[in-house]
Amino acid sequence: MIVRPVCVIGLGLIGGSLLRAAAAAGRQVWGATLSTVDAEAAVSDGFLVESRVDKAVAMARERDAIVVVAVPLPAVDQTLSTIARHAPDCLLTDVVSVKGPVDEAVRRFTTRVRYVGGHPMAGTSASGWEAGSDGLFHDASWVLTVEDETDLSAWRDVAQLVLECGAQAVPTSVAAHDDAVARISHLPHVLAAVLAAVGADGGTLALALAAGSYRDGTRVAGTRPELVRAMCEGNRAPLLDAVDDALGRLGAARGALASTGSLGATLEAGHQAWNQLQEYRTTARPKARIDLSAPDAREALLALGARGGRVIGVDGDFVITG
Amino acid sequence: MIVRPVCVIGLGLIGGSLLRAAAAAGRQVWGATLSTVDAEAAVSDGFLVESRVDKAVAMARERDAIVVVAVPLPAVDQTLSTIARHAPDCLLTDVVSVKGPVDEAVRRFTTRVRYVGGHPMAGTSASGWEAGSDGLFHDASWVLTVEDETDLSAWRDVAQLVLECGAQAVPTSVAAHDDAVARISHLPHVLAAVLAAVGADGGTLALALAAGSYRDGTRVAGTRPELVRAMCEGNRAPLLDAVDDALGRLGAARGALASTGSLGATLEAGHQAWNQLQEYRTTARPKARIDLSAPDAREALLALGARGGRVIGVDGDFVITG
Repeated sequence: MIVRPVCVIGLGLIGGSLLRAAAAAGRQVWGATLSTVDAEAAVSDGFLVESRVDKAVAMARERDAIVVVAVPLPAVDQTLSTIARHAPDCLLTDVVSVKGPVDEAVRRFTTRVRYVGGHPMAGTSASGWEAGSDGLFHDASWVLTVEDETDLSAWRDVAQLVLECGAQAVPTSVAAHDDAVARISHLPHVLAAVLAAVGADGGTLALALAAGSYRDGTRVAGTRPELVRAMCEGNRAPLLDAVDDALGRLGAARGALASTGSLGATLEAGHQAWNQLQEYRTTARPKARIDLSAPDAREALLALGARGGRVIGVDGDFVITG
Repeated sequence: MIVRPVCVIGLGLIGGSLLRAAAAAGRQVWGATLSTVDAEAAVSDGFLVESRVDKAVAMARERDAIVVVAVPLPAVDQTLSTIARHAPDCLLTDVVSVKGPVDEAVRRFTTRVRYVGGHPMAGTSASGWEAGSDGLFHDASWVLTVEDETDLSAWRDVAQLVLECGAQAVPTSVAAHDDAVARISHLPHVLAAVLAAVGADGGTLALALAAGSYRDGTRVAGTRPELVRAMCEGNRAPLLDAVDDALGRLGAARGALASTGSLGATLEAGHQAWNQLQEYRTTARPKARIDLSAPDAREALLALGARGGRVIGVDGDFVITG
């Protein structure tokens, strides 16, 4: 298997951490960013950074690198347009937190590229190069999309990079990803904002009494709002479904508390869901292999992701799952 | 100032931690609990534990101890009835997470006791004696209620115990406490339950992708539902107000996302509220003193709590604030 160099466009928290992790794994790496702050910080940490995206991308074409789009969603179109002009055939992935709009943009700009949509489920509420580290993805789940057109050898090459970063690859469709993250990433940000505001409306006394439950429940409200907006607004339809489910459950809780005085159904359901997460995390999954050259490889990958499995290794044409 | 012994009724997470912390501060302590599991664990850790509440309370009368009610809200009435029979004049406090119902129960059962309602803003999602420690209250805020009838020398004696446990005393009224905790403690539990359930409704893939935002936002859904029910359902009217505020804000977010595609107002307000909490936490508060024998002492204490101040020391008839 070819160990490709890695070209990262965008050197914020995620892109910057990926650049470091790929370098730590022994890959040749370089980046490009329009942020002079991130560029200067990355250069002073010893990395090669182009200030022009087209130059970084042209170098990727010369060296058959994996190009990683690590810019915020609103900047994806412009970045893809540059890639389509300067490296139309490159192996392409991204780390943007919604997959539908990126997938559409890829089809629009660069129909010929080999593209695997990516989303590492890792982060902190801080942002920028300085907030990153080569260990950010350690033990994280990292979605890699599988669609009808996906070239599975490209998928395997991107999975290899993900594994080298310390993460595990979760194969899933673009649509299933966006539905899932609306529930477990975007809705948490919306609820954190709502909780933060309702708490602060209680005045200084409320802030003085705020302890663990409020602090944890509002933690991600510390993220820069423009980053949260980009990911939430970019996943509008699935997020609306998730918000409607939350409104339905919160309204039912309100009704029960007002009429019968009981929050039993709400709290029992929440506790049961919490237990499901712990069970998922502590369940041992037997190792197995999927032959990527088999005719049903695509279905096998998607079934693996749907039952919560991950790709934990690559061995020639096979991926090892667990 | 008399250093009174401490008698704790209920030896779960909070009562058990208080028993240990008071002992570590050099107080004579004993407890009582109807839980044989907690009793056995406390005894094997070297503490004196009565299996009968009446005997523990009678000993408190003999020794002029502070009696701490540390039972769940549904057991408060029975505990107070025993205290009223066996130690009607004792200095009484409690650590129950809502103050209105306890205050009413105290008036009903033991009009003659000197009572200061208490609520330490500390805890973990675990429960029982084994989950506690003498450091649980380190740097925590600990509400002590100030009402028209409150004997301020009793207030000072309870504040002294709170300080010895490593916490800081926040003076406030029963009603202001219950409004505040509805927003920063009870609503977080309800939202955590809602978020946990909406996430788990996304199936195994959603659980596989759940990262920090979902984990933090659902953490307190791991608490035993019967404990959460007791505190939330015991604070019904203020919690209904807080839930209505959350429903209003979440509904507005839903409407804006559906109509304009923007979550800007919601996320900006949440981020601003989050900043308010950080500012509160990093603001230095100058030391001052309140003379508890002065005619306006009650108002001074309540004003201190309303502006987010705390009592950090006791010096004769004075409390030191910061």
